[in-house]
Amino acid sequence: MTRERLYLYDTTLRDGQQTQGVQFSTAEKHQIAAMLDQLGIDYIEGGWPGANPTDSEFFASPPATKATLTAFGMTKRAGRSAENDDVLAAVLNAGTPSVCLVGKTHDYHVTHALGITLDENTDNIRASVIHCTAQNRETHFDAEHFFDGYKANPDYALQAIHAAHDAGARWIVLCDTNGGTLPSEIHTITQAVIASGIPGDRLGIHCHDDTGQAVACTLAAVEAGARQIQGTLNGLGERCGNASLTTLIPTLVLKPAYAERFETGVTPEALKTLLRISRKLDDILNRVPLRSLPYVGASAFAHKAGLHASAIAKDPATYEHIDPAQVGNARIVPMSNQAGQSNLRMVLADMEVAVARDDPRLPGILTDIKTREDAGYAYDSAQASFELLARRALGQVPRFFEVKRYRVTVERRKNKYDQMVSLSEAVVVLKIGDEKKLSVSESMDTEGHDRGPVNALAKALAKDLGPYQATIDDMKLVDFKVRITQGGTEAVTRVIIDSEDGQGRRWSTVGVSPNIVDASFEALLDAVTWKLLRDGVRPCPT
Amino acid sequence: MTRERLYLYDTTLRDGQQTQGVQFSTAEKHQIAAMLDQLGIDYIEGGWPGANPTDSEFFASPPATKATLTAFGMTKRAGRSAENDDVLAAVLNAGTPSVCLVGKTHDYHVTHALGITLDENTDNIRASVIHCTAQNRETHFDAEHFFDGYKANPDYALQAIHAAHDAGARWIVLCDTNGGTLPSEIHTITQAVIASGIPGDRLGIHCHDDTGQAVACTLAAVEAGARQIQGTLNGLGERCGNASLTTLIPTLVLKPAYAERFETGVTPEALKTLLRISRKLDDILNRVPLRSLPYVGASAFAHKAGLHASAIAKDPATYEHIDPAQVGNARIVPMSNQAGQSNLRMVLADMEVAVARDDPRLPGILTDIKTREDAGYAYDSAQASFELLARRALGQVPRFFEVKRYRVTVERRKNKYDQMVSLSEAVVVLKIGDEKKLSVSESMDTEGHDRGPVNALAKALAKDLGPYQATIDDMKLVDFKVRITQGGTEAVTRVIIDSEDGQGRRWSTVGVSPNIVDASFEALLDAVTWKLLRDGVRPCPT
Repeated sequence: MTRERLYLYDTTLRDGQQTQGVQFSTAEKHQIAAMLDQLGIDYIEGGWPGANPTDSEFFASPPATKATLTAFGMTKRAGRSAENDDVLAAVLNAGTPSVCLVGKTHDYHVTHALGITLDENTDNIRASVIHCTAQNRETHFDAEHFFDGYKANPDYALQAIHAAHDAGARWIVLCDTNGGTLPSEIHTITQAVIASGIPGDRLGIHCHDDTGQAVACTLAAVEAGARQIQGTLNGLGERCGNASLTTLIPTLVLKPAYAERFETGVTPEALKTLLRISRKLDDILNRVPLRSLPYVGASAFAHKAGLHASAIAKDPATYEHIDPAQVGNARIVPMSNQAGQSNLRMVLADMEVAVARDDPRLPGILTDIKTREDAGYAYDSAQASFELLARRALGQVPRFFEVKRYRVTVERRKNKYDQMVSLSEAVVVLKIGDEKKLSVSESMDTEGHDRGPVNALAKALAKDLGPYQATIDDMKLVDFKVRITQGGTEAVTRVIIDSEDGQGRRWSTVGVSPNIVDASFEALLDAVTWKLLRDGVRPCPT
Repeated sequence: MTRERLYLYDTTLRDGQQTQGVQFSTAEKHQIAAMLDQLGIDYIEGGWPGANPTDSEFFASPPATKATLTAFGMTKRAGRSAENDDVLAAVLNAGTPSVCLVGKTHDYHVTHALGITLDENTDNIRASVIHCTAQNRETHFDAEHFFDGYKANPDYALQAIHAAHDAGARWIVLCDTNGGTLPSEIHTITQAVIASGIPGDRLGIHCHDDTGQAVACTLAAVEAGARQIQGTLNGLGERCGNASLTTLIPTLVLKPAYAERFETGVTPEALKTLLRISRKLDDILNRVPLRSLPYVGASAFAHKAGLHASAIAKDPATYEHIDPAQVGNARIVPMSNQAGQSNLRMVLADMEVAVARDDPRLPGILTDIKTREDAGYAYDSAQASFELLARRALGQVPRFFEVKRYRVTVERRKNKYDQMVSLSEAVVVLKIGDEKKLSVSESMDTEGHDRGPVNALAKALAKDLGPYQATIDDMKLVDFKVRITQGGTEAVTRVIIDSEDGQGRRWSTVGVSPNIVDASFEALLDAVTWKLLRDGVRPCPT
């Protein structure tokens, strides 16, 4: 039996950016577009060219994607032609193969928000779509407030979308802009649209999570016949967020009710990268990944109840609706150390650390990881620190040097021009072999700007490592992430440092402490130690 | 038209406690039970007496509630009578007016996980329910894995629940234990159960969020006829969580599709406390509230898009599915570089800052926001700093005090026990009126733990604010977020600080600098200034 094609349309880079606190840089947009493309998304909406500098810059140097890159904008305004509308021109000038124009379909919004007549609005939709298709763009029409509009005035709502359809729009996307429509209503109204003469394979669905049902609303539209799904990674988006593609994709690919009827561009292999993509997005946004996220959350396959855990040991399917490996996730069973150990050996093997299956030190390493993760460490984002932890337990990390003490001072005061200026200074005292080394650095960069206490500390630590100096000279700190997290009963600071060397290697280390300077220093030390170890440096005898 | 009664059954204290990282104390259980009772919940499941000391202690001194307190347990085991089953005895000995027993209804689980025959299992269910009802307990039967069981062997699944029903169980609760069933399947199977002879007003529904559809699945069962809803506050629960009552209740009470047909025990007045209850639970659990939570999330009514904000200013219903005040929430129009003039005017109006529409200072404020956001500030996450920025431009922020200088020192060295220990010390020098104030604090908390340099600085700043001290004494720093971001050409640190006072007000401020201590200090200063301003403190003359 042939399956129908469902098209996935991602709007993380546009509607996802409406999330409070989210503002992507152009480089981050490129990074996310590449992930979406690898996942197998059909359309990537990159932003609204002309609306802000970042979006314009993104389209000025667009990524090369298999997915159809789409520029977002709105239908032309009244009182000017489509050719002379500068907002529409900016969208078309982005030069993408596809454009998505939002337009009003709710009569009240036309007359009250826009302040134009219903016929003027219909004309704006028609003329805009004709203008885009005339330039050979695949045109999506986002029918704003469609469901609320249909409830208020079904004739006008249908008239508006038929204008777009008849003008040649490839897709008419029914939007539940305010997010308050229920799945059963979405189903009924989508069916009514199809009955009015727009076939389901020309219809898209765009839902928001204001009643916690964005996923269900989207699936209700698919069941009614819609064949394009709009959503975002991790359900980012305005207010409560958009329908989450991170949740919808595994449901469509893995649940027989959908998998038997539909196919998408996401292969089973690509689906296994879903967790990685979800975490990477959180990483870019410096957000704590939500543990309870369906499919990809750290708790999604965690079995806390004792009754569940014992049945899971007999057959995982007893308490799991899918195999977690299908989305790149893993089962967490607090009681079962057996699964944990084979997992650990796999990770270590990836790092070229060979350990026998029955090595008596394996359980200790697992316990250590658990204790430290409870205290706030995050080893999934700091592989180099994880490797050091395991190698230390296996006796494979020599003591290259000893830190005797350090001191960092931050001062802010008026300079001679009566301006407030800051300066940080760090002193680090090490013992290398038999030699004591005192180093001092300040936080001033070559342009005379203060770069802060961690910078001063990093410079002092790396200033004179004696026999090791040549090895670490090409090291630089390329990223620094800080998060306040819960360590036991107290809030602690977790610092993750990304380092890079002249060979282009990049590694991440972690430090945790209530004191941000201490946490940073711990991560810096691990970064240096990992580099010395990986470069095969021989430790000075102590 | 008379409305049908829907019964709300809360299992936050039992299934909610299966959330990874959640472990309530007895006192916390009492606190939560009181909130649930005030909200108007019908049944409060307090835990599993006998399963752990906390739950036993809770039932030993049960709270006095209007709601029916319910003890959870499981059906008797095979090979003994209901009278002689100690697990069942512990449940009944809790002395609650109502009990809820979980039992198996999926044939595979009976034969493989329990290892007994299907008939033995049916007998266990029947005997257990008879035993409970004989002791005048209102009995709920949680039909574990019911939907998966029905799909595998509908005859046996129905036989198991009919045994409970015929034995006198008041409620048969259909559980989607693994959380993988789709809403349409829930609907069809619930209808089949009713067709088999168990009326809808004897049926409950218990769903999990493993496909992100726990709310929709619950509502699908209600639409099919079920009349009891099980869920948890904030959707706590095993793996991805249970159906969230925090989302379901406002949907049932406010959405006409449900409100016209059903009534619950939650009054419109009680509904206004929903946000407070949701936040209080996070507070008890020391969790950061999820901003995107439907109805009660801090972002649930945040309008970031410029187009939305201008329509909202004309009529909030244009982009809001309900009035946020109905659930105790409030509208937010965050400032971001996507926002336009209309956002600014609305935000100022919400902050009770009266500015004429054509005030010549308005464009300057917008430019200032844009410049500062380009430099790394994020005003949509720091409303209080935004308010200060605007009020400063309008000449409405007096200079309460002047910071002359500060110094922070972090030292790490060996103590007399040869352990590495850290200590931070901060000196802050202020001028208040004509008086110069020097304050010094260390980072040690009352338990002797170092809390780091920002803590020391915050303490020194708030140590002696002279005439302002009484106003800031109830302030505390509740959250601290740090992000490395790009400010112009250089990486800078953005610090966001959330503060709270004795009136329960919570406000966020932002600081940006390449130096994390400076950035923190800027955010701390804004936090103090906002509090002084909002509390109407008169500045000392300088």
